[in-house]
Amino acid sequence: MSAKKLPAPPYYAVIFVNQRSEEDGEGYGQTADHMVELAQQQEGYLGIESVRDAKGKGITVSYWRDMNAIKDWKNNLEHSDARNNGRDKWYEDYQLQIAKVEQGYRWIKS
Amino acid sequence: MSAKKLPAPPYYAVIFVNQRSEEDGEGYGQTADHMVELAQQQEGYLGIESVRDAKGKGITVSYWRDMNAIKDWKNNLEHSDARNNGRDKWYEDYQLQIAKVEQGYRWIKS
Repeated sequence: MSAKKLPAPPYYAVIFVNQRSEEDGEGYGQTADHMVELAQQQEGYLGIESVRDAKGKGITVSYWRDMNAIKDWKNNLEHSDARNNGRDKWYEDYQLQIAKVEQGYRWIKS
Repeated sequence: MSAKKLPAPPYYAVIFVNQRSEEDGEGYGQTADHMVELAQQQEGYLGIESVRDAKGKGITVSYWRDMNAIKDWKNNLEHSDARNNGRDKWYEDYQLQIAKVEQGYRWIKS
């Protein structure tokens, strides 16, 4: 979602707040990059915003056209595999929320 | 939202993705802390998650019982003042989305 215009609501946001473990930084980084590439190829993908701080806390918000697009992405086999690795190795804890975006705007300093 | 249980949906998320300028780090930090304190005192406040990376990109998600709680917080005078300073000094760009949370869960490594 780096273009200047946001999609017209309604659409969906998947809010993923997580704490990285200190394990397997390299494997995590490769898989995270690959998951973004894969997500971008999914039907109904609208964009992604992601931040991680120095203590390993991260928030990733991905945006989707509708619930079906989110379900298809959830069922992607490589993505399921990555989630299993996430619970085994990469995360201490996380929360995931699915939310319907009703309003949105963007502001850029002129 | 650091307790172990998430609220039962539906509730609302305000997703704020932003890029800090390099101006006025001290003033920004003080105001940001004060805004969290103020928000916590608002009727209908449910929690907040916030991350900023080394390049100054941040994502803050605040959670609210309903749209009225979000409107009241928007209309808070100190908060309006802070938003004005944000556009004048603290941010290069931001996007703000209001979304109704329909599902959510938390996972903690056992």
